[in-house]
Amino acid sequence: MHDAAVEAIDELEGLLRSHDDVPPKEALRLRKLLDEPPIKDIVSLVERSNATRAAVVLRLLSRERSIAVFDALDAAHQADVIGALGNKDVYSFFDELDPDDRVSLIDELPAEIADRLLKNLDKTERDVTGVILGYPKGSIGRRMSPEVPEIHEDMTVNEAMTLLRKEADDLETLYSIPVTRRDRRLVGVTSLRELFLAHGDRKVKSVMADPIFACANDDAEETARWFLPLDLLAMPIVDHTERLVGILTFDDAQDIVEEEDSEDSARAGGAEPLQQPYMSTPLVKIMRSRIVWLLVLAVSALLTVQVLDAFEGTLEKAVVLSLFIPLLTGTGGNTGNQAATTVTRALALGDVRKRDIAQVMWRELRVGLMLGITLGTLGLVLATLVYGSDIGFVIGLTLLSVCAMSATVGGAMPIVAKTVGADPAVFSNPFISTFCDATGLIIYFLIAKTILGI
Amino acid sequence: MHDAAVEAIDELEGLLRSHDDVPPKEALRLRKLLDEPPIKDIVSLVERSNATRAAVVLRLLSRERSIAVFDALDAAHQADVIGALGNKDVYSFFDELDPDDRVSLIDELPAEIADRLLKNLDKTERDVTGVILGYPKGSIGRRMSPEVPEIHEDMTVNEAMTLLRKEADDLETLYSIPVTRRDRRLVGVTSLRELFLAHGDRKVKSVMADPIFACANDDAEETARWFLPLDLLAMPIVDHTERLVGILTFDDAQDIVEEEDSEDSARAGGAEPLQQPYMSTPLVKIMRSRIVWLLVLAVSALLTVQVLDAFEGTLEKAVVLSLFIPLLTGTGGNTGNQAATTVTRALALGDVRKRDIAQVMWRELRVGLMLGITLGTLGLVLATLVYGSDIGFVIGLTLLSVCAMSATVGGAMPIVAKTVGADPAVFSNPFISTFCDATGLIIYFLIAKTILGI
Repeated sequence: MHDAAVEAIDELEGLLRSHDDVPPKEALRLRKLLDEPPIKDIVSLVERSNATRAAVVLRLLSRERSIAVFDALDAAHQADVIGALGNKDVYSFFDELDPDDRVSLIDELPAEIADRLLKNLDKTERDVTGVILGYPKGSIGRRMSPEVPEIHEDMTVNEAMTLLRKEADDLETLYSIPVTRRDRRLVGVTSLRELFLAHGDRKVKSVMADPIFACANDDAEETARWFLPLDLLAMPIVDHTERLVGILTFDDAQDIVEEEDSEDSARAGGAEPLQQPYMSTPLVKIMRSRIVWLLVLAVSALLTVQVLDAFEGTLEKAVVLSLFIPLLTGTGGNTGNQAATTVTRALALGDVRKRDIAQVMWRELRVGLMLGITLGTLGLVLATLVYGSDIGFVIGLTLLSVCAMSATVGGAMPIVAKTVGADPAVFSNPFISTFCDATGLIIYFLIAKTILGI
Repeated sequence: MHDAAVEAIDELEGLLRSHDDVPPKEALRLRKLLDEPPIKDIVSLVERSNATRAAVVLRLLSRERSIAVFDALDAAHQADVIGALGNKDVYSFFDELDPDDRVSLIDELPAEIADRLLKNLDKTERDVTGVILGYPKGSIGRRMSPEVPEIHEDMTVNEAMTLLRKEADDLETLYSIPVTRRDRRLVGVTSLRELFLAHGDRKVKSVMADPIFACANDDAEETARWFLPLDLLAMPIVDHTERLVGILTFDDAQDIVEEEDSEDSARAGGAEPLQQPYMSTPLVKIMRSRIVWLLVLAVSALLTVQVLDAFEGTLEKAVVLSLFIPLLTGTGGNTGNQAATTVTRALALGDVRKRDIAQVMWRELRVGLMLGITLGTLGLVLATLVYGSDIGFVIGLTLLSVCAMSATVGGAMPIVAKTVGADPAVFSNPFISTFCDATGLIIYFLIAKTILGI
């Protein structure tokens, strides 16, 4: 990147931080400077800006470059920016989106704005968008590209090449090419590479392979997860009669997986995903993404207050017991989180399936016991040295039990969540911390009462 | 998938669960049945099996299919399986790997086995592997494919096409084609698609675009993260003299990001990543991936024991204060985790940079205050109802302070970690819980002493 380009971006960022718009006399100069930097640097600038500032940057760019930048934004951020842009710009951005990205944006927009934008599209684009909108939310049909070349199995390689050359600009990819019968039923796939290496008079059916494909109603995340490791560039999508309706490209599959991973990561930290870059998200949206979880967790933590209340008599007789409360609940929570995180990720990657639950629990129980023996021994020795052997045994035994229990529950919980149709990441870390806290405290006081005889 | 194939896999899985090998009289029948299922189902069976069983499955498959399955495994799992396989199989699996995958496997193998395998390679393959091994661990040079076609800018399109047709089988991809000067300095990129759409007599330099490229010594994760959103199929990799040394394909970039996300997810849960599928990982490896973290956290939690020890006098005078310990530390930990998770993800995606730290802290302080006011009000009301207004004010004020502090610290910590060169995910959740626990307790007792006057 040229130095001038770096400076242009830095200067613009500085200007935007102090004003919400660019002074008119600066605009012309900046407009020229902004022709230099690579698109990806401008995208990253826009992703750090709120909607008003993003709109300013987009208006400073040339038409072609602003369309490329808008195209690269997340749908939720696009929707925010649309609110801050004039009508004219909005129409051209909306026109130039791929049909699948257009549908993602529509899902984020208020209904009346979406309708107005759709009405303004030309008929072909509107029809194509309508097809995608017909598939349920969360299905792969929503994320596919519906523009596929019609290559039939009994064309010759030369005929196919001629057709592809003609349609090349309209098609999202040329690299994985579905082959159909005359009735649009999918029979195979070929690629520009295969066609290119084959003799021109051969039939397409002689250079095609068995297709790997998905059905438009299939779940988008599951489909993307099994498709990506195959390292294919694209695969055909069919309807329930096995007729070709679209194509899923690797970059769309990648976006699906990235969104799901962001969602899992947010939920594992006890928040809803933001759906758009952090720095451009309004504070109130961030607060909303967290408060529900925080309230749920705080209210369920009232359970720990009740458990402690029930044992208040024991606590009064041995205040020393309260010193270890955060250590013990923390260790339980950590052990449970470790197991839950591992199993949640394994579920997402397909390494663990629902019916493996008994095996997973048995594995985690043994891992938990190994961890508990190590930590328990350490706890026994340290606590004995400072507070005497009675307390030492209480702490050691509690650590052993808490680790074994937390690992087993932590490993099982994500699978239980998936079985009842909830998001495994939601059930995992925050929920398990609270559960392990309450149960761990009960175990702790029962062991203490027995050993100390109070 | 045919029913017979599903049954073959289920039967094999059942057999493997009860024995560590397949009875000879069953082998022939299973071998035939295993020709049916798609590779991806066999891969998923092998990923759920330990090394011994994985070796049994690989030996039952035809040569071609077993190579495809081995190729699809994670490097750490491949290394385990190699221990369980005979020499002959190992050589052919190792031969057939792409050079970059071969290097990942070498990193996982004991040195003497790696040396023996390398010596057995033919010279060309050994040289190519050597080039990749020359780049530092964690660099993109380790993950690129070094087999690139030599297309020069002054070739004609027809000459380029002829050359590509000849080399097609050796090259990892034909879709993004680097163009060089005669001295191998990179000057542009073209693609099969561009060549295919252009007239055969034109010079290659007239159908090439400015190259987007990376340097072989660049960090692998950072490179993959900025490359993937560009939705390119591949990009050239150059050395420090801008000479072409390899190509990075989208699927290799995807693998890098997936590994890093698995690593972040594991570390956010306070464990080291497993590097191979959960069900095939030996229990001792799982235990090892967790024990270090658990010990570090438990030892740092001793801080909370000391804080409570210091306030033991206060606790003795008002045992009721101990009832709220898990609630308060839990809420602090949760708020800190939410902030840290969001910022860690934003750092990974490039939405937040190191120099944004002040802005991030200021954002998080305000979010934390909003969260604290909501939770604090609720805490004030509930605690007043049950334990009286003095305790109510203590709880309310503590919740407010703890939320504001935890969000600010939680947001800053991942950026601090990145600045000092540590993994942001490592610093985030587990560390923050412990930090917020200790600090939160100090705040709690200081507020309590002031309000209760003890």
